[in-house]
Order: sequence, then C-alpha cells, then structure tokens
Amino acid sequence: MFFEGSEKKVEIVIKSTSLSLIDDINDDFWHSLVQKAGAQILSCITSSECKAFILSESSLFIWHNRFILLTCGVTNLVDSVQYFFDKQGRDSVDYLIYQRKNEYYSYAQPSCFIDDVDTLNKYITGKALRFGDMDSHHTFLFYTLPDKVFNQLPKSEPEKLINKSSVTKAKGVSYEFQAYHISQSVTNIFTKQNITTDEIRVFLQLNTLLPDFTIDDHIFNPYGYSVNAIKEDKYFTIHITPQKESSFVSIESNINLIELSPIIIEMFEPKAFDVLCFNDKNFKSLLTQYINKNYLTKTLVEQKLAHGGYAYFASYVLPQTEFTHATPLNLQTS
Amino acid sequence: MFFEGSEKKVEIVIKSTSLSLIDDINDDFWHSLVQKAGAQILSCITSSECKAFILSESSLFIWHNRFILLTCGVTNLVDSVQYFFDKQGRDSVDYLIYQRKNEYYSYAQPSCFIDDVDTLNKYITGKALRFGDMDSHHTFLFYTLPDKVFNQLPKSEPEKLINKSSVTKAKGVSYEFQAYHISQSVTNIFTKQNITTDEIRVFLQLNTLLPDFTIDDHIFNPYGYSVNAIKEDKYFTIHITPQKESSFVSIESNINLIELSPIIIEMFEPKAFDVLCFNDKNFKSLLTQYINKNYLTKTLVEQKLAHGGYAYFASYVLPQTEFTHATPLNLQTS
Repeated sequence: MFFEGSEKKVEIVIKSTSLSLIDDINDDFWHSLVQKAGAQILSCITSSECKAFILSESSLFIWHNRFILLTCGVTNLVDSVQYFFDKQGRDSVDYLIYQRKNEYYSYAQPSCFIDDVDTLNKYITGKALRFGDMDSHHTFLFYTLPDKVFNQLPKSEPEKLINKSSVTKAKGVSYEFQAYHISQSVTNIFTKQNITTDEIRVFLQLNTLLPDFTIDDHIFNPYGYSVNAIKEDKYFTIHITPQKESSFVSIESNINLIELSPIIIEMFEPKAFDVLCFNDKNFKSLLTQYINKNYLTKTLVEQKLAHGGYAYFASYVLPQTEFTHATPLNLQTS
Repeated sequence: MFFEGSEKKVEIVIKSTSLSLIDDINDDFWHSLVQKAGAQILSCITSSECKAFILSESSLFIWHNRFILLTCGVTNLVDSVQYFFDKQGRDSVDYLIYQRKNEYYSYAQPSCFIDDVDTLNKYITGKALRFGDMDSHHTFLFYTLPDKVFNQLPKSEPEKLINKSSVTKAKGVSYEFQAYHISQSVTNIFTKQNITTDEIRVFLQLNTLLPDFTIDDHIFNPYGYSVNAIKEDKYFTIHITPQKESSFVSIESNINLIELSPIIIEMFEPKAFDVLCFNDKNFKSLLTQYINKNYLTKTLVEQKLAHGGYAYFASYVLPQTEFTHATPLNLQTS
C-alpha cells in the first residue's frame, strides 16, 4: 500500500512581541488550523519554550513567536496558512517560508507548488525558488519579502534593504534530512505486527541521541511512525513511511543533523537521501566531514535569501552496481 | 517556457499477414489516429518497408505489420490506442506495448500511467511493470499477454506457454536513449533565431551517422526539433526540447544506440541520461564497453518479458561537485 510521506512545510514568524502563540492562543485554534489541511491533532507535549503536536499526518511545533507545521499524505497545507491569515490577520505575519519537496506521486496531490504560491500571493509578496532539478530530488521554497521595501529593491542585492526584525527572525538554524528506500530489514521492523513504541525508541536510539528530551510518539495503522521530541527551544521530529515501494524517512530539527548523519545512514541504509539546511554557514565543510563517502552528490545548491539568511540543499545517491528486476504494478490499486 | 518533452509510446503488432498497415490503410486513418491523442501529422517520408510521419508532438512509424506512435507534451496517447481498437477491432492486435516515462511535470498530464492501463485493460489482458524507482528516472511499461493462455500461466514462467507468433513479433531489437539537461552551448544552438534544418543536420552529424537514410525534419516554434530517418526497415528518430529548465533529447531506433552513445554524450553533454533496450542480450557488456565512465549508474534493471523477450533499463547521472544557485520560479507562468 502506497503512502505519500513527502511533506509540505510552513514556518510563520509573527511580528508582535506582546502576543505569545503558546500562551495567548488556545488549542481550539490549532485544532482548526490543522483540520483545514485535512489532518487532525492526536497528542501534545510541552517544554519551557515549545509546544509540540503529533498529527494524523506529521507534526506541529509552536514557539512563542513562531510555528512550524508539517503535513504529509495528500493534505492541503496551504489551506491552513490561509486560515492563519484569515483569523490572525495578514499583518500579524512578519516572515513566512513555505516548502514542498518532490513527491513520489505528485499527480495524486490536491495542488502543485505553483498553485500554492498563487494562493499565498493573495496575502503576501514573496519569492519562489527551486533547489534541484525537476527530474531529480528537489525542494520548492517560497518566502516573504516585506511589502514596503520589495518594490524598491535593486535586483542584485535585495537583502541590504530588508527590515531588521525579519533578518533576525529568519536566521534560525535548522536541518532537514530525508532518506529514500530504506533497507529491507528496517522496513521489516516497522511493518512488524504489534511492534511497540518502546521497541522503536530503542531502534532509533532516541534516549542516547536526545538525552533529557520530552518525547511523544505514535504508531499508525497499517504502517507508519511519528515522533516529536522537545527540550527548551530545541525540537526534533522523525516521520517514517516504511512501505517498501515508497519508503521514506523525514527528520527535521534545530539540532545538527549533518553531524548525526553517520548514525542515521547506518540505521536506515537508504538508497538516496537529501539534506536541507537553513543558515548553518559550515554546511559545506560539515558535508565533507560527515557524509558517508559511498554516496555521491547528485545536487548541491547554496542560496542566499533576501533576508540575509542562507538555504542549502544537497542530494545524495548510492550508485547501483547490480541489475535488479522491474517492479510489477498492482493494477487493482488505481 | 516549459515544454514536456517526455514521450508516451505505443507499439502495436497486428495478427494478420494478409493486411498491410502501409498498403491497405489510407492516411486518413493515421491522421485521425494521431488527432485522437491531440497531435497532428506534419509530413511524411517512405522507404521500401517503412512510412514515417513527423507529428506536431513527436513521430509515427508504420511497417506492414506494426506501428510505433510516440507523442510528447500533454497529449493523450491512450486515446489513439482506443481509436485503433475501435476501428480495426481488438482482435486485430497480436501484441501491444505501451510505455510512459517519468515526466518533468506529471501533475500537468491529462492522465497517469495507471489511468492509461485501466483504459487499455478494457480491451486487452496485460502486465504492467515499472523500471526504476518513483523518485528517480523510471519507465512504465504495459504489454499484452494473449488472452487464451493468460489464465493458465504458472506465475513463475509464463513465457513458456505463449503462442509463437507473439514471441517472434515481440522480439524485435530496439533502443531508446534519453538525455536530460544538455549543455548550455547546445541549448544556445537550438534556441538561436532563424536556425535552419541544414545547420542542425550538420550539428547532429546525420549524414555521417545515417548514410543513405531518407531524412525528414522540422523546427518548431518557439523551440524544438524533430527528425525522422528511415532506410528499408531501419528507423531512427530524435526529438529535442532545448529549453534550459526542462531540456530533453529523446532518441529511438532499431540501430544500436549504445554503440553511438559516446558520440551522443559528447554532442549533448547531458547531466543525466537513460537507456532503454528491448531484446539485445549484449546490453550489459555494451554498457561496460561504450558508456562514458564519468557517469554513474543510478538504476540498472533487466526484465524477462512473458513472451520470452527482454527489456533493459539503465539510468546514469553525472555527479555534481560544485555548488550552484537555486532556480528562481517565474510566478507568472502558472
């Protein structure tokens, strides 16, 4: 059975320093926001600075001045963003970054990235970029350019004129790691009947990798596993789609995932993986130092953003040396 | 401006030895057949054994007992196949093979492969396969299993029971070569104002590579080039989509394209390319002998077909060693 693990993601930073998204907005709002995308909130944990929800399709993290919403499957994340604009007001938003990556079955999605950007453009002025070629792994990214200065920007160096609050808020460091086609042994573990979250936490070494984090996880029926982990302002989330034909592991955090990549690679033995990173200027040297040399770089992108931040994307593949057979398609699934 | 160069392809072999698709079916039928997919016939050449049409979207080749129809863009090739079944009768078809490869923008297509197979399944019993993973270059293939024997087949070795006429007809050797992201200098040549077919024929070395072939070619507005070349029962076709963001060169022939690959690679300098081959049992050794060693194998597939033939697929990528910038998206094109 196929499931689209590839996620859509939005991060919104608010302008107000007097409003707290955690303290001043009740959970009903977040339930409604998530429902707009076609997902549901399943559970919640809190730290001193963050609130994390496991969703029926991925995760929601809220800090006092920003939130990150990740949704997978055939959810329509842009509808949640519209709901936020409509309820909180477009002017409450200081900075927005909206992302979509290549999907296994883009044909089955309710919209494509450009459709979503058309929707967002009704509210905000932004810039859309693609990291990677259309025929290989890639990530689309749309982010706000403040209205007031956008039209005055010299095209070459728009970052010089952007207001300072956006600059600061847009420069948070974060990492995304996506693994494709994990090993059969890992698929077997995650598709085992009656597997428990305890067994999975041991397999994922969560207690070792994330000491003192508050952890919340969920096993999905028939397959799939999600975990949120938070500690103070740190967040860490893994979403695993183990089904053989479309296996996918998505990890996201403001902990350095490139340093953890040797453990992740050894754990999942993927045929391919992508690393996306915001604002860690050591990105290139980290890749050289930590990425397993059996994998080859399909794509390498470095992009300065208009707010002065940086986004980096690297896509790796394991060369195939032996011939395999073709994959029979189940004609009853259409 | 984006154009989907990726082609859909159908090959149909007829049962009758007394009917000739060239001599007994007039061109009005082929015009209508092509129109059903949303394309038009632009021109025609003939050899002693083959008739070749340049289409507004790709090519049609007709021999006495079979034809190959290739259509690109957002054409709906399966509608042409339905038209053939409806007009010539389902029982006229001895063997059908229907193919689609990964598209740059599958989201923009009128149907997906499984939709097409659902349509074909109304007429014929077949088997569907995928060569390559969904998240990298891949080709879908659907081919007929003769009705009478299909239900008696042991699942492991169905090929033993297939009738002999299909076996012979399904074992023709052919090659497909698809190049992605050609060099900027080649894009410049093919997007030059007022370029002539003579200049392109010189660039492609057609007179050297295809001595004594009858050649027909067409330059498209604003961009694109198609050429058909035939000699006796040999065919050779190239379709070039030069636009930078979605550049694509598709070559198909029953001449050995793997032996020609060093010339093709040197000509286009693609970032990635795929080779699909039917029934050349030297496929593996040909790859070793002829494929440029700077490219790495992303995918290697060998598949015995139920009729006793073989299909092979190999996908190559050039590792990227230097960082590039992200690609700005034109938000006005949606």
